[in-house]
Amino acid sequence: MAGEGDVKLLGLLVSPFVLRVRMALQMKGVSYEYIEEDILDKGELLLRYNPVHKKVPVLIHNGVPLCESQIIIQYIDEVWAAEPSILPADPYERATARFWAAYVDDKLFPAWLGILKATTEEGRAEKVQETLAVVEQLEVALAQCSNGKPFFAGDSVGFLDLVVGCNLLWFEALRRMFGVTFVVAGKTPLLASWAERFRGTEAAREVMPDADQAVEFAKKLMARLGSAPVPN
Amino acid sequence: MAGEGDVKLLGLLVSPFVLRVRMALQMKGVSYEYIEEDILDKGELLLRYNPVHKKVPVLIHNGVPLCESQIIIQYIDEVWAAEPSILPADPYERATARFWAAYVDDKLFPAWLGILKATTEEGRAEKVQETLAVVEQLEVALAQCSNGKPFFAGDSVGFLDLVVGCNLLWFEALRRMFGVTFVVAGKTPLLASWAERFRGTEAAREVMPDADQAVEFAKKLMARLGSAPVPN
Repeated sequence: MAGEGDVKLLGLLVSPFVLRVRMALQMKGVSYEYIEEDILDKGELLLRYNPVHKKVPVLIHNGVPLCESQIIIQYIDEVWAAEPSILPADPYERATARFWAAYVDDKLFPAWLGILKATTEEGRAEKVQETLAVVEQLEVALAQCSNGKPFFAGDSVGFLDLVVGCNLLWFEALRRMFGVTFVVAGKTPLLASWAERFRGTEAAREVMPDADQAVEFAKKLMARLGSAPVPN
Repeated sequence: MAGEGDVKLLGLLVSPFVLRVRMALQMKGVSYEYIEEDILDKGELLLRYNPVHKKVPVLIHNGVPLCESQIIIQYIDEVWAAEPSILPADPYERATARFWAAYVDDKLFPAWLGILKATTEEGRAEKVQETLAVVEQLEVALAQCSNGKPFFAGDSVGFLDLVVGCNLLWFEALRRMFGVTFVVAGKTPLLASWAERFRGTEAAREVMPDADQAVEFAKKLMARLGSAPVPN
């Protein structure tokens, strides 16, 4: 396949940023070597290939590193340009997908991560409310983008589906840990049925781990940060 | 010109985010109506067209709004696709430009804005150091991206030049207010000569206001925020 060459991915099994890149590679049929990194004790490879942010994912294509998941997915879509396309073809739809994708990483991720990082029960409850508010806004975005079709991108999974969808693993982990539910048919019906469809895609089934693995990682992170304990 | 139609821009004369979009429109030869917004007292147009972030710039193309400056510039480059190209053609160079552009908005802008927002002299001095550290990192980025050519994008101004360059107005404003200099030939020689070239481009000369206008806006913002006063 054009441009394939040698592809490695430095990742973390439960990272939503890594999962979206793995789904993009799966959708494009790209073979790659996956290398799990311990992000609580960063290794030499990660520091060498992403010295600016020291974060996963890092895609290493023919020896050259690429960082930042949204940028990596656009790169994958441009290098392995055969169908399926991940970004929409229309400039306005591309801009809209990029707008909401930036919104998700700026607002949704910090909100739910804040639930894990909170040092008090009150602080945690605030972050739950913040997450719910972002999810409500995403219901509006889904109505706007999908225009009655099954996915944000239309008839099949695209850029924004990947960016939003890989947070679902953590919604399920947070439900198991704290009993909070973020996407329910009664409040965000479009997102609820979209989430079912997203989880059922071949790419998601192939890369998405069981939420217990996210729970296990969350507990290690919370111990490290000195977060408020998980209620019994 | 293909796709031109009716173009309006909601902006703020001294915003680096607005300036980069105006430079992109100028480079592409797009005619547009410019509408100055008072972002300290937001008007109905801004709230209607950017309800999520309520920020400038907003590009309104044939009645449809687009927000977030980096996304708008990519849209402009895709809709008005004739030369000059703003994004590089090569996927790896595109990814690299996007990576550093995200870095600038995540790290450089909050660092220098922090100088204005600081409520103590110590807090301000910290933000000056933070800004200097980001500038040093951008010297490395310029060496990597330009590969000996005059601009980040090569022989002429491109995406990353616009994103970095529009901060130069504020570097000059901060110099006039606080006597700090961020880009000097002795410490960041590549950036210093790049900055001269950038300011000399037709697009920059056409849209960049005098730094005294940024100083005037900064004083209003600082009064609003209750920042530490400007030393005499």
